[in-house]
Amino acid sequence: MTLGAAEQFDVVIIGAGPAGLMAAVWMAQTGVKTLVIEEKLGRTLTGHADGLGSRAFEILNSFGLGESIWMESNRTIDVCLWSSSRGGLQRNSVSPNNNPGWSRFQEATLCQGRIESYLLNFVKRHENVTIEWATVPTSLEISKDKTETPGFYPIGLRTKSSSMQADEQPERTVQAKYLIGCDGAHSWVRKQLGLALEGDRTPDEHWGVIDCIPITNFPDIRKRCIIKSDGGNLMIIPREKKLVRFYIQISPTVAESFKANYCPSALMTVLKNILRPYTFDTSSTEWSTIYTVGQKLCNTFSVRDRIFLAGDAVHTHSPKAGQGMNLSSVLKGIATPEVLCTYQAERFPVAKRLVAFDRRMCSSVCSTTEEEDPNSSSDRFFDLKSTLSEENTCASGLGVVYGPGLLVTPSDNQNSVPCVDGTNLCCPHSKPYLARNIVVGGRLPSQSVLCQSDSHPWHLQDRLVSTGQWHLIIFGGNITDFTQMTRVKRLTDSLSHPQSLVNRIVLTDGSPVGSVATYMVHSAPREEVEFMDLPPILRPFDDVTGYDYSRVFADNKVSEEGCGCAYQNYGIAPEGCMVLVRPDQHVAFIGALEDTHALFKFIAKSFVVR
Amino acid sequence: MTLGAAEQFDVVIIGAGPAGLMAAVWMAQTGVKTLVIEEKLGRTLTGHADGLGSRAFEILNSFGLGESIWMESNRTIDVCLWSSSRGGLQRNSVSPNNNPGWSRFQEATLCQGRIESYLLNFVKRHENVTIEWATVPTSLEISKDKTETPGFYPIGLRTKSSSMQADEQPERTVQAKYLIGCDGAHSWVRKQLGLALEGDRTPDEHWGVIDCIPITNFPDIRKRCIIKSDGGNLMIIPREKKLVRFYIQISPTVAESFKANYCPSALMTVLKNILRPYTFDTSSTEWSTIYTVGQKLCNTFSVRDRIFLAGDAVHTHSPKAGQGMNLSSVLKGIATPEVLCTYQAERFPVAKRLVAFDRRMCSSVCSTTEEEDPNSSSDRFFDLKSTLSEENTCASGLGVVYGPGLLVTPSDNQNSVPCVDGTNLCCPHSKPYLARNIVVGGRLPSQSVLCQSDSHPWHLQDRLVSTGQWHLIIFGGNITDFTQMTRVKRLTDSLSHPQSLVNRIVLTDGSPVGSVATYMVHSAPREEVEFMDLPPILRPFDDVTGYDYSRVFADNKVSEEGCGCAYQNYGIAPEGCMVLVRPDQHVAFIGALEDTHALFKFIAKSFVVR
Repeated sequence: MTLGAAEQFDVVIIGAGPAGLMAAVWMAQTGVKTLVIEEKLGRTLTGHADGLGSRAFEILNSFGLGESIWMESNRTIDVCLWSSSRGGLQRNSVSPNNNPGWSRFQEATLCQGRIESYLLNFVKRHENVTIEWATVPTSLEISKDKTETPGFYPIGLRTKSSSMQADEQPERTVQAKYLIGCDGAHSWVRKQLGLALEGDRTPDEHWGVIDCIPITNFPDIRKRCIIKSDGGNLMIIPREKKLVRFYIQISPTVAESFKANYCPSALMTVLKNILRPYTFDTSSTEWSTIYTVGQKLCNTFSVRDRIFLAGDAVHTHSPKAGQGMNLSSVLKGIATPEVLCTYQAERFPVAKRLVAFDRRMCSSVCSTTEEEDPNSSSDRFFDLKSTLSEENTCASGLGVVYGPGLLVTPSDNQNSVPCVDGTNLCCPHSKPYLARNIVVGGRLPSQSVLCQSDSHPWHLQDRLVSTGQWHLIIFGGNITDFTQMTRVKRLTDSLSHPQSLVNRIVLTDGSPVGSVATYMVHSAPREEVEFMDLPPILRPFDDVTGYDYSRVFADNKVSEEGCGCAYQNYGIAPEGCMVLVRPDQHVAFIGALEDTHALFKFIAKSFVVR
Repeated sequence: MTLGAAEQFDVVIIGAGPAGLMAAVWMAQTGVKTLVIEEKLGRTLTGHADGLGSRAFEILNSFGLGESIWMESNRTIDVCLWSSSRGGLQRNSVSPNNNPGWSRFQEATLCQGRIESYLLNFVKRHENVTIEWATVPTSLEISKDKTETPGFYPIGLRTKSSSMQADEQPERTVQAKYLIGCDGAHSWVRKQLGLALEGDRTPDEHWGVIDCIPITNFPDIRKRCIIKSDGGNLMIIPREKKLVRFYIQISPTVAESFKANYCPSALMTVLKNILRPYTFDTSSTEWSTIYTVGQKLCNTFSVRDRIFLAGDAVHTHSPKAGQGMNLSSVLKGIATPEVLCTYQAERFPVAKRLVAFDRRMCSSVCSTTEEEDPNSSSDRFFDLKSTLSEENTCASGLGVVYGPGLLVTPSDNQNSVPCVDGTNLCCPHSKPYLARNIVVGGRLPSQSVLCQSDSHPWHLQDRLVSTGQWHLIIFGGNITDFTQMTRVKRLTDSLSHPQSLVNRIVLTDGSPVGSVATYMVHSAPREEVEFMDLPPILRPFDDVTGYDYSRVFADNKVSEEGCGCAYQNYGIAPEGCMVLVRPDQHVAFIGALEDTHALFKFIAKSFVVR
């Protein structure tokens, strides 16, 4: 056994499932030197997670991946609730599986393997990320005295091949500045840190999962269904192509039988029984497994702001990813290392809520109900319906709101006393009443706007590409009005000034990570606005590519595109406002066009400035 | 020189530009054994054609290619007209570059090389099509006595490598049933057939073309512009990335200068002069050329219905393709060989109108106008504006209507006398008044509808995938109404009957080419319709894949998707109708739900039936 020289990486990610690959996508995009190691020989081929929420699509789309995955996936638009009735099954209700208007994307399903494939292809286009398959970690050391110093490599990790004999292979040591453990529910990293998932395992709730092509006369087979039958409880989730996923509640006996021979026939028998009197068969089963329900959560998401746990390593849910960004900013020396504590502060409450929600969801699916008179007015699905409604609102990724912290300003309310000079100088507070439907700490909802230069309709969110850049959106109002344009010019003059804090952020050689890009959405008729008359910061010039024509948008109506309602839907008055959006599309700050001091103060707190 | 054994192909395509590749895409999709030869070493890299009309996108999308090309291309949404005024330039008008509501796609631009790349990747996924680069034809023979017999190979073609020395390479002979000449304006095939492009070449109109990244303060550089300046005439067409294409009218002297040294600097000087007083420069020129305007047309599109000419070989215009389909049907013995004469009958008038339109377009761009008082009410752009409006309507691919023929029924009008039994038995006529906004012979406009089985919103056009299959759409009305459902059932019973002509079409081993697929768009509330109660022809069953859930749609409203207006927008009354759509999405027949005899008569005329 030879010990190779230690190779150095900014970040090592352990695990190449959805959470690990999503983190790798962020690292790839922001140019961080990264190693990903994964025990398996390659990506997932069948089964496992298969759901994508609206917010997951929005995040994937900010890397240019959303549209393709959306086109390939299967949208689950309706939810049907069924129950036993007079020896048969009856449909109790059909309701929408999304909350209209929250996002242009909705819940959809696609095999985890395909999602991983899109993420892998993205990562492979970037040379700064290396993926090593069939590799497992063997030991982890963290040098305690160096964790405070940004430039050091305090983490030592030994790895070996998982496919070779132990005595014939070289063991390897790598050094890293940061480590992200995305190695699943049985996380090796979590165990090395002496941490545990906490929570109860309900011993009697076993579930079987089957992915197959159904041959059935059950009429709602292409809709999401929850069936509470005398034969047991069942969830139906239609998938891409003609696949359908079935979650089947099973007895401990069936679970044992499955474990004994790994054959889905016992599950299939239960499934057929639940669906009776409808016929059910399958021409091919793609994947099946069993699991025992348990909502668990690790109370610690990060250790010394050097090692982070993500995905199933800290909780259990589907690939609704989207973290990792702050790490790039810190690595590039742009953000202060303190911002890394926001990972625990922001994501722990989200995971906690999600796990609690999962618990309610499971209990409302599994609760046994007596067969009732179908004419009775009482609703045995009452609990389930309210849980489902919650799923599409506060439990959805769209509803995640981070509390005030280093990267989210606290909110002023309209009646609070301003500072003496009226500028919010004393502390960077947001004024949420200036954009009533944009939530500080929440993700910026998308609205359609028209590009000033070519009238192209865009979802504003599609222009906020995930590059590690922050986005300052100036809602300038009707800028053909002299007063309004004067306010905008005063703001852009402040931003453009060489001493402006926006221009004093310390950046890395040509990388956009941590810089602030300025945009404008105005409400003037776009044909009355001349591009060349706009402040130069809104049309950056480059010797090679000319002017940047993609920063100014008009909130104007146009046929068939749903444009012209951005101010109204954002709840922004004609006086406008400015909104600072983080690289992960969450809103950090809302202020008046005059609130440059508050903006700069916020930047001074979280960025390394000259 | 050795002569290899003659290899046999169903179809040989000469030329792998957009026209040849589009034909190859059709052949690939329909499983026809095809050879494509192309003189060049590979696909186009820069320059050449770059415009795609709405109809081109619709056709590409019927092969699953439209969305990706649409996302990558640049939409030209506005047209600006500029002219000289008091020594400077003034913007005379800004108007939309499309006709709202005609198509969800609009005119857009993308480098021909990228479009070819999409088509090539599609073709490469099919083993039945072989592409040979660097290969030229050397002789063509057509055996006159065999052209009438469908199964024979009457065409003999010799080819050689264009990159090897003549004396060191083997010459090769291939035999083909059909040959398509897509070899450009100087078509070798056309010359072999003794045919010529006819039309005048206007000797004084020279144009230069430059693709470059402009560095300019001209404000409309990202819009389509037509500029009539004292310095000359100019068209600006913004492209993908930050490229812009410029068409510059030049003098014979400048044309000579360009020819002498193939350098765009002379063109650039003219361009700068036209755009004065705006500054103009470029950081990189991707491509440039010059050409002399000439609208030309070959009067013969096909010879003995065995050799066909397409694209620039018969006229001059951008890649608005979409033919080739009938060839597959005839090759597979489904359609009668007579339908091939529809190529000349249908496409020649289209080309003739297009060439005439090009002539008007050029003359209205080039007409010299005196500088006018800007306050004058007379409009020097009058001609140009009406030509531009024509471009978005009747001259657009969307407006192409094929006249009655073997593959399009003539139209009855409401007052015509029906046959004695009221069934249109005597001749297959359409009843256009049953769907007032669907034009017989025109392409079926797209409307959004909801899939009955999973409520997924779809553009109806997206479900009419180009596979060579015909589509019979039953607009059944409110099928929860007993009378209406009875009418639908009577129709589907006729269609399903073993002796139905739809079931007697002679098909090739498992290929969909030439078969008729039945769909329904009803207007009943979808939650009141049970999938399993529908006629079996609308839910075909397969042992391996189960029911086909993609044939029945509801015209119901749903949030944010523009659904629920299909009947209204198609102009279909509650009684409904049936619409037979060809594999190229053009409408062949419109009848009442009772008009099965007319439908069958149409099929009997154009298909080979048992």
